[in-house]
Amino acid sequence: MNNFNWKILNKSLKFKARTGIIETPNGQIKTPAFIFCATKGALKSISVEEANRCDTQIILSNTYHLMLQPGSKIIAEHGGIHNFMNWKKPILTDSGGFQIFSLGHGSVADEIKRKNSSNKNKSLLKIVEEGALFRSYIDGSNHLLTPEKSIEIQRDIGADLILVFDECTPFHVDKKYTEISMQRSHRWSKRSVNSFNHKSCFKPAHGSAGPQALYGIIQGGIYKDLRDESVDYNLKNNFFGLAIGGTLGSSKEEMYDVVNYTSNRLNEDSPVHLLGIGDPQDIWRLIKCGIDTFDCVSPTRLARHGAVLIKTKLGKLNIKNSIFKDDLSPLAEKCFCSTCNNYSKSYIHHLFKCNELLGFQLISIHNIYFMNHLMSTIRTAIDNDNLVKAEAEWYSD
Amino acid sequence: MNNFNWKILNKSLKFKARTGIIETPNGQIKTPAFIFCATKGALKSISVEEANRCDTQIILSNTYHLMLQPGSKIIAEHGGIHNFMNWKKPILTDSGGFQIFSLGHGSVADEIKRKNSSNKNKSLLKIVEEGALFRSYIDGSNHLLTPEKSIEIQRDIGADLILVFDECTPFHVDKKYTEISMQRSHRWSKRSVNSFNHKSCFKPAHGSAGPQALYGIIQGGIYKDLRDESVDYNLKNNFFGLAIGGTLGSSKEEMYDVVNYTSNRLNEDSPVHLLGIGDPQDIWRLIKCGIDTFDCVSPTRLARHGAVLIKTKLGKLNIKNSIFKDDLSPLAEKCFCSTCNNYSKSYIHHLFKCNELLGFQLISIHNIYFMNHLMSTIRTAIDNDNLVKAEAEWYSD
Repeated sequence: MNNFNWKILNKSLKFKARTGIIETPNGQIKTPAFIFCATKGALKSISVEEANRCDTQIILSNTYHLMLQPGSKIIAEHGGIHNFMNWKKPILTDSGGFQIFSLGHGSVADEIKRKNSSNKNKSLLKIVEEGALFRSYIDGSNHLLTPEKSIEIQRDIGADLILVFDECTPFHVDKKYTEISMQRSHRWSKRSVNSFNHKSCFKPAHGSAGPQALYGIIQGGIYKDLRDESVDYNLKNNFFGLAIGGTLGSSKEEMYDVVNYTSNRLNEDSPVHLLGIGDPQDIWRLIKCGIDTFDCVSPTRLARHGAVLIKTKLGKLNIKNSIFKDDLSPLAEKCFCSTCNNYSKSYIHHLFKCNELLGFQLISIHNIYFMNHLMSTIRTAIDNDNLVKAEAEWYSD
Repeated sequence: MNNFNWKILNKSLKFKARTGIIETPNGQIKTPAFIFCATKGALKSISVEEANRCDTQIILSNTYHLMLQPGSKIIAEHGGIHNFMNWKKPILTDSGGFQIFSLGHGSVADEIKRKNSSNKNKSLLKIVEEGALFRSYIDGSNHLLTPEKSIEIQRDIGADLILVFDECTPFHVDKKYTEISMQRSHRWSKRSVNSFNHKSCFKPAHGSAGPQALYGIIQGGIYKDLRDESVDYNLKNNFFGLAIGGTLGSSKEEMYDVVNYTSNRLNEDSPVHLLGIGDPQDIWRLIKCGIDTFDCVSPTRLARHGAVLIKTKLGKLNIKNSIFKDDLSPLAEKCFCSTCNNYSKSYIHHLFKCNELLGFQLISIHNIYFMNHLMSTIRTAIDNDNLVKAEAEWYSD
């Protein structure tokens, strides 16, 4: 695990919150940090240069999407994803598990988090001990993704932080299935570790990837005894980092409870990632459980719908609302992003009215800057041990 | 005409080509120059910051689109279009005439240039001495645009260079109609000049616009005697600049002939703009007739279709072609744009395959840089009086 390091800098006295630094060969990540989604090797609608100017520390890309298009070998030929997409700072890839199962069960992330299954568009064909058989959403071809194959693909892609292959259990299954699935995920995790430790067997064609660090994933759904069992499994395996995966329940309170319970059982040896959470209110709450990194598509997805992140409990405004037609003020007062420095709500409202793609860019810049500013505010508050005050100020600012 | 100046720097001995400088309150334009279209107050898919980094000197926006959405008063409230869209260099607006008539006759620019009329989607309702009555493409409401109204709107918008209101005659009409239309356009031009000279009557609500300079438009279609008459009218009226408008015929040779004939009758007192031409081969040919500025939507429109401008007679490549799937080379060798510096054809091919908007941006950056590099190469060639050699080198580069 050369080139990688995790250290805690400061800890809150009242909460489990902490600041820290994850060191990677492509630079360090100050935690708590937000990881922005470049699902298919691109941040939706904005350039990596813009993301960099917004103080972005780390992005993630999805093994599932990249293995299907353009294929991991093409990324390896570029010398890895940092070169491919021109992002020279840390990158994380997931294992492909989340998408196979979330798309596979007929819906997307919401389904994993709390919604019931629908039967349409199921692309997951079969789960066997060997791995998961699914149908490509691009051309209908069948693919078997195994732990070994996931690690090999992630090696080709060449992100800094990579994840073990797991089944992401949805909410609608019962405890029995959650347990069976968790135990299979542990076996898959073990096979992922073995592949990772012998990854020299899988050297990419053009020797792309530098060193990588592996995250384990804690399963167990909403069942505390299963979460215990999965924490025990993961702690035994000396992962560089740990991610809390699987369903987190059907309500925000249940999510807080599952995350709090799980993270309370973790030690300080690893950074902890929470998959798929990006609501600022959730982040204020969950950093208090000791979560170090979050990822979510929300900042850029919201932007494409005209939703602007703001410092209120409501959390956003809709720029398409006609009240902004001649509002000359910036998206947010006291925001220092380049969009707020240079453009009015009226102008961006106009861009959305006439379908100019620049509108997506300008709000994406604001939303990304907003999330990075949120995380920086949180880090300062932890360092000063005044989280409660800082959170109150955030909303009254 | 304070704050505006036109001077010729160097002239080709063999051709009518010249380099010059147009000075405006928002900076100078080295000519020959290309003007990029920000039709609705935004460069399609890229930010003005990117356009600036690509050495862009001047952009244009369309009165017709802006008067309908967001309306010129909202732009005036921002202190004019430079503030509205955050472009602090020169801007030109057309008078609205071109769009009313090109959209009005049931098609767009191609129709004006060479194609026959189709009857569908006609939005032009009536041309009367007072002005042109048309139906909004946004909400179906009726609008009467007159010369006075066009100048008032352009005053509110506040571009540096503005145009008289004219009827843009299509190709399919006969000589008689072209003559009637031209003479009406001259009367409209005269009314535009009167409005422009008394524009203090039309002070925008928040006093947005600084000084502006007015361009006349030379009509006459493909008929040399009519072009003569229109040149005479325009030269008598002391416009700051002159634009060659109306139909330019049904073939490239006819276009060269019309432009050459018309520009040969012009003196050196004004910069000459050619409306709607953006093909590099046409530009190499037409600067030799003394054209100083060109505008066209092509660089960004082509980009959105995956077409990359390159230095060949063919002029472009299609990045969506599967031969680029694993082509690690940049869009163009020896190109110094940020796209070519940082990304491979393979990556941009991938972006188009998976519908990532970033693909539009990256090719737009290249195409805009390419056009600015073309114009800069042409200016150097005129200064060195070696146009023929420079053009041959351009294609063999």
